[in-house]
Amino acid sequence: MRCAVIGDGAWGTALADVLASNGHDTMIWAHETDVAQAIEQSHENRRFLVGLPLAPALRATNDQGAALDGADLVVYATPSQHLRQIARKGSASVNPAAILAVASKGVEQGTLSLMTDVVASEVKARAVVGISGPSFAMEVVARHPTAIAAASSDAGAALTVQEAFASPTFRVYTNDDVIGVELGGALKNVMAIATGIVEGVGLGYNSRAALITRGLHEMTRLGVALGARASTFAGLAGVGDLVLTCTGAHSRNRQLGVEIGKGATLDDALRGKETVAEGVATAQSAMQLAERHDVDMPIVGMVHRILFDGHAAKDAVPELMARELRSEQDL
Amino acid sequence: MRCAVIGDGAWGTALADVLASNGHDTMIWAHETDVAQAIEQSHENRRFLVGLPLAPALRATNDQGAALDGADLVVYATPSQHLRQIARKGSASVNPAAILAVASKGVEQGTLSLMTDVVASEVKARAVVGISGPSFAMEVVARHPTAIAAASSDAGAALTVQEAFASPTFRVYTNDDVIGVELGGALKNVMAIATGIVEGVGLGYNSRAALITRGLHEMTRLGVALGARASTFAGLAGVGDLVLTCTGAHSRNRQLGVEIGKGATLDDALRGKETVAEGVATAQSAMQLAERHDVDMPIVGMVHRILFDGHAAKDAVPELMARELRSEQDL
Repeated sequence: MRCAVIGDGAWGTALADVLASNGHDTMIWAHETDVAQAIEQSHENRRFLVGLPLAPALRATNDQGAALDGADLVVYATPSQHLRQIARKGSASVNPAAILAVASKGVEQGTLSLMTDVVASEVKARAVVGISGPSFAMEVVARHPTAIAAASSDAGAALTVQEAFASPTFRVYTNDDVIGVELGGALKNVMAIATGIVEGVGLGYNSRAALITRGLHEMTRLGVALGARASTFAGLAGVGDLVLTCTGAHSRNRQLGVEIGKGATLDDALRGKETVAEGVATAQSAMQLAERHDVDMPIVGMVHRILFDGHAAKDAVPELMARELRSEQDL
Repeated sequence: MRCAVIGDGAWGTALADVLASNGHDTMIWAHETDVAQAIEQSHENRRFLVGLPLAPALRATNDQGAALDGADLVVYATPSQHLRQIARKGSASVNPAAILAVASKGVEQGTLSLMTDVVASEVKARAVVGISGPSFAMEVVARHPTAIAAASSDAGAALTVQEAFASPTFRVYTNDDVIGVELGGALKNVMAIATGIVEGVGLGYNSRAALITRGLHEMTRLGVALGARASTFAGLAGVGDLVLTCTGAHSRNRQLGVEIGKGATLDDALRGKETVAEGVATAQSAMQLAERHDVDMPIVGMVHRILFDGHAAKDAVPELMARELRSEQDL
């Protein structure tokens, strides 16, 4: 199958490597010229996935039209807030019979759209599939067993994505709850910032576990209000990705939270970073979604106040933890 | 309120410290004479909670009758497989109007009973409450914010337990799903062994997150078959404790799994350890419960085969991860 991967970050590169390793004719579109050159010539993404050898058959280009030409499967893995503009730019080159898989994680600012909706509104194609789940890119490339979800209202398209990516170390579960799968992947980045803040303030594992549990409740509540199934949040794109991002070593969002918990401002914490902490923009969008749908999201609210309203982390965390006692079923 | 805590391990000691710090007249029953002496004289449990100062008002004794005398609240925190015998021994000294709170986590071998049922069958009292949730003992004593669940079919008894323990850093949520709360606390120890095995075999965070997610599904399936609510497993005693035990630094069960994943036998891994890895006995009981109720539990089965049937961890883990692709909703 001809595959195009739009986006040369760690996650896009890892997904392209899986496709190319599975024997698919795969080309990655890179924004940076040096990244495209390094992938083509040295089979390595020396900017975003340093030191990991990629499939020699994987090709790269800076020309989106060339990457998209004749592709049966197009994977979008750009930063969430740039997705619309990049998808629009390439839309004329997309084969209308192609299946689009969207791996970007976030909620678009302003429109509050999910990433599959952003792509669907910009690109004409057969179907759109959201992919999300617990997956640090470097471990995928290192062939550590990984499982993710592929969600679409078009069951055949989800199956095609499943088959394209499936390997002995990369399992793809199909799902028809696109909203749940996408929201899980987006909101977990806000919870990772919250977890990092709690850690940076100096609290321990008990507090982190309580925060993750209550964070899952918040995510589920918003998801259900938006039409998702609650059970999706108990799956790979919910609990799975939440646990990975809040407890694994490689999360940018968690690391940003730790710095802020220790007293840095958002500007301090963002300065000099080449990669994007998706949770910052998502905290704003999620707050607006919560208000629009009248859903109580105290943890998202705490993160929002600390990031954007100058609330001190060392005060906000105890406030959150001290909310009044009540029955767990009310949570 | 007069409180007795039966069991001088880390968790019993921490719970006794919370009660005594809240101003309750609290006495802990210790099996070991040196532990009782150290708590009485130096306000420290020098065997199971070293270096952490306990409430000076907390008293300790080796005489269970003395600890139980006049107690309005009795907390059981013994190793799960010794609970019946210890509760029976003290039963004549328990005030029939007392509330019993059970903090031991496990499923009794042979009878396959939950810990609250073990206590209820041995001790006459007003009501039995199960308490469980993400709580490393040392962090509770260090006053890191912690949240747990107190579950009983007697709502008033659960409220009494909530009020007795509640402090600014220790939140107790009431719940009426005793089976769910208890099973969550018991089964998570088996999942912690599984997580340790995966880690010991050399896999990464992606695999761990997938295993935790699928472990939660298994726990929920068994719970529902036994009459629990699925949503309880999304709460503190389910996801919360599972995340703590599978990802925190202080889990004995996870540590045992790591050793076994690296190639140690169960005998090797248990040798010379003073504390109990509850997951070992629970793996056997859970396997029997799963068979009795015809519930598919592939992770518990993997742990059981590795611990008791000589299956090599390095073979069993890939087998589990390679199960055929299917829809996530079928999980």
